[in-house]
Amino acid sequence: MDMESTSLEKATVFARARPLFKGLPEKLKAKVVELARKTIKLGKDEPRRVAHSLKVGLALNLVSLLYYFRPLYDNFGVSAMWAVMTVVVVFEYSVGATLGKGLNRGFATLLGGALSVGAHHLACLSGEIGEPIMLGFFVFLQAAASTFIRFFPKIKARYDYAVLIFILTFSLISVSGFRDDEIIELARRRLLTILIGGSVCVIISILICPVWAGLDLHNLIASNIGKLGNFLEGFGDEYIKTSKAGESEDDKSFLQQYKSVLTSKSNEESLANFAKWEPGHGRFKFRHPWNQYLKIGTLARQCAYRIDALNGYLNTEIQPSSEMRYKIEEVCKEMSLECGKALKELALAIKATSQPSSANTNTHIENSKSAAKNLNSLLKSSVWEDTDFLAAVPVAAVASLLIEVVDCTEKIAESVYELASMANFKSIEATVLPEKSQIRQRDDVKSPAKVDCPHVCITVNEPTPAISGNGNPSVTTRNLEL
Amino acid sequence: MDMESTSLEKATVFARARPLFKGLPEKLKAKVVELARKTIKLGKDEPRRVAHSLKVGLALNLVSLLYYFRPLYDNFGVSAMWAVMTVVVVFEYSVGATLGKGLNRGFATLLGGALSVGAHHLACLSGEIGEPIMLGFFVFLQAAASTFIRFFPKIKARYDYAVLIFILTFSLISVSGFRDDEIIELARRRLLTILIGGSVCVIISILICPVWAGLDLHNLIASNIGKLGNFLEGFGDEYIKTSKAGESEDDKSFLQQYKSVLTSKSNEESLANFAKWEPGHGRFKFRHPWNQYLKIGTLARQCAYRIDALNGYLNTEIQPSSEMRYKIEEVCKEMSLECGKALKELALAIKATSQPSSANTNTHIENSKSAAKNLNSLLKSSVWEDTDFLAAVPVAAVASLLIEVVDCTEKIAESVYELASMANFKSIEATVLPEKSQIRQRDDVKSPAKVDCPHVCITVNEPTPAISGNGNPSVTTRNLEL
Repeated sequence: MDMESTSLEKATVFARARPLFKGLPEKLKAKVVELARKTIKLGKDEPRRVAHSLKVGLALNLVSLLYYFRPLYDNFGVSAMWAVMTVVVVFEYSVGATLGKGLNRGFATLLGGALSVGAHHLACLSGEIGEPIMLGFFVFLQAAASTFIRFFPKIKARYDYAVLIFILTFSLISVSGFRDDEIIELARRRLLTILIGGSVCVIISILICPVWAGLDLHNLIASNIGKLGNFLEGFGDEYIKTSKAGESEDDKSFLQQYKSVLTSKSNEESLANFAKWEPGHGRFKFRHPWNQYLKIGTLARQCAYRIDALNGYLNTEIQPSSEMRYKIEEVCKEMSLECGKALKELALAIKATSQPSSANTNTHIENSKSAAKNLNSLLKSSVWEDTDFLAAVPVAAVASLLIEVVDCTEKIAESVYELASMANFKSIEATVLPEKSQIRQRDDVKSPAKVDCPHVCITVNEPTPAISGNGNPSVTTRNLEL
Repeated sequence: MDMESTSLEKATVFARARPLFKGLPEKLKAKVVELARKTIKLGKDEPRRVAHSLKVGLALNLVSLLYYFRPLYDNFGVSAMWAVMTVVVVFEYSVGATLGKGLNRGFATLLGGALSVGAHHLACLSGEIGEPIMLGFFVFLQAAASTFIRFFPKIKARYDYAVLIFILTFSLISVSGFRDDEIIELARRRLLTILIGGSVCVIISILICPVWAGLDLHNLIASNIGKLGNFLEGFGDEYIKTSKAGESEDDKSFLQQYKSVLTSKSNEESLANFAKWEPGHGRFKFRHPWNQYLKIGTLARQCAYRIDALNGYLNTEIQPSSEMRYKIEEVCKEMSLECGKALKELALAIKATSQPSSANTNTHIENSKSAAKNLNSLLKSSVWEDTDFLAAVPVAAVASLLIEVVDCTEKIAESVYELASMANFKSIEATVLPEKSQIRQRDDVKSPAKVDCPHVCITVNEPTPAISGNGNPSVTTRNLEL
């Protein structure tokens, strides 16, 4: 709706500006309109992108002052360009990525600079002809070794940029040392300007509309679990509808949301990597158990593979139903619905960083398990003669997959409980479960400001638009003031 | 075996060197040994990594000559450092990535330089006080707009680095122009040294042990399909074994290979992106249909999701078998086996860039389809009273999933045929299928050198070790001289 009115608005703007475009061929005009539409959508879907762009502009202007102010320029000279360069390459979208790159760059420059000064002195000892040969040998050795180190998976994940900058600094300073005798001054200036550039980036990215990779990861995992829940909640209905009345033309987009979960692994991993660089923020402490999110993410993906298989049965041709099949389908529907509810409970709890209401969640899981037992006894007790087995194969497959989904759901629930206790999530059912109140007490000691206002604690920090705009609207902040 | 003898060898080396390590605490010693072991493994798994490291060292030394030789240094001065920097940041593992980064960097520097010179002149018109304000305004505008452009998915995929370098060059040159009047000379030197650095990278990466992203993508897709084939070939046996005789302790690692297919999406996408930058090489022309590989990859992943669901049934508890179940299991085994064979045929054909022997492949697919039909009639004809339905549910689920796998296999086969005809793969059955010979003729016209030696054409270029060392040994180069 909103999208439509925007494009209407834009259409009128372009209609008014028509004389300007008269000379342009129709095709180009259409392309420009399309581009403008896409640009506006990109900004609207995620206003933090606009903020980020402005922040980069601001940071660049701040470091430009090193050039504009005479006293600053006299101190740094052309080395001021390192500050500009640092801002351009270090300023990333999230605080974690920026901090990680900044720290990598700072330490690598320090180490590379120190070693290159040493290499330069060693090379100087070997006379005028020997010097470039020695320098070349050092640069080769260092570059080859460091490049190889970049292939180690652990280094690649967290320190790739540091090794790159180490190679860069070492090569630059040791080689330019051949023509410039003030090599220590060179290294000092490079380090100082890089520190200035890096600090500007980090400070701006933390102070102005910070984008926390940790929070994004947290929300991504919650929304992924919510998407699985949405599918399972809807699956039962949709499945029976399909097999009964043929295809209906309702909005089934919520049934396709889970697809993004199938391929979110690399996204989760990079967010977790960035999150590990971040200081404590909002409800997350510095050593928040980010790896546990990856574990939950993996379990959610395993569940999503089963769901993808289930999804295949939504579009099978309709078979005339029999009483037996109907009974089984009813039980399947209940299993699916209860799993969906449990997953959505968990998603809400994660989103609110509260202890999942294990009473509720467990009830749903228990319900789905007892439905599975019902299914078993139903299958045992009944005889399968009144209908052909052929039509029952897909039903049996769905039942079997759902039994696995129940299993997955239980595993996800367990790992979410684990996360909640590792990260001392707020307990909001202290009166129900006495052992949870201990966890709450422990938490209270560490963050006393939050004791008296659990409602505030579980309000998600603004701004928290859903990740890349495809968030699941039923798991939003506003639902969460439990 | 090979691994063991290596570690034995290394153990003796370290035993001889023991006196050197005497002073070190045991823990540190163990860590060093472990690190050395890992390093050797990393290099052995993929010797191209070692070659890459040496290539980077060589390239850095080549551009260092700009400093060492007086005449060259007189021409470029400190700008020579841009060449060093370019080598460090542009030299990537594959030719495609290096070329892509080099071209991005070159064009972005040209454009950024030109625009910044313009901005500098405009700013100069506004007087001494106005100049920094105007410059700041331009830098802000340009940085914010360009940063926002980086969020467009298409730009991010292929031109992200170009936009980054555009921001960098524009900011650097326009801002340093404030203190340096020879701004055009500055821009010219920066462009020239970047071109030198970029050319050195590209030339070395193409001439010395080139790593073609396109070939890697090609092999990755082939090996992924082969992995699915391996699973399906083994599944039937393994499934019946499990449900008959309990778990056996054979090497079942080939049954787990398919897992890497589940998460290879991002790897495939980045390889395809790099491959698009690459010139024609070996059996691949410049406009090779790389996107078709992504399509095949997506289908293979869909198949892998089903296979992951199937894999769940390998570890279910054993149920006493009935005659009916036994019959169904036999048919399932055949379906799985035939699909596996078809996929392995396809994998071999892709690996050899030959037209898949559609006679063979289709035979396997037809076999698996007729097995599916057998299953149907078996289910229709039989009555399911002699056993309880409960035990039949997993069997039905497996059967149902296998029917979907047959469907996936057919789709994969179709898209591989499509690839083969788009890319004019060699036909090696021209006598069997007359319509294929036309394709061969077309191909012959374009690459006449290959006409008389189809055996040479389908030999995989050396060196082609399997991707990141986890290749499937049954789909190697040596099998492919068909």
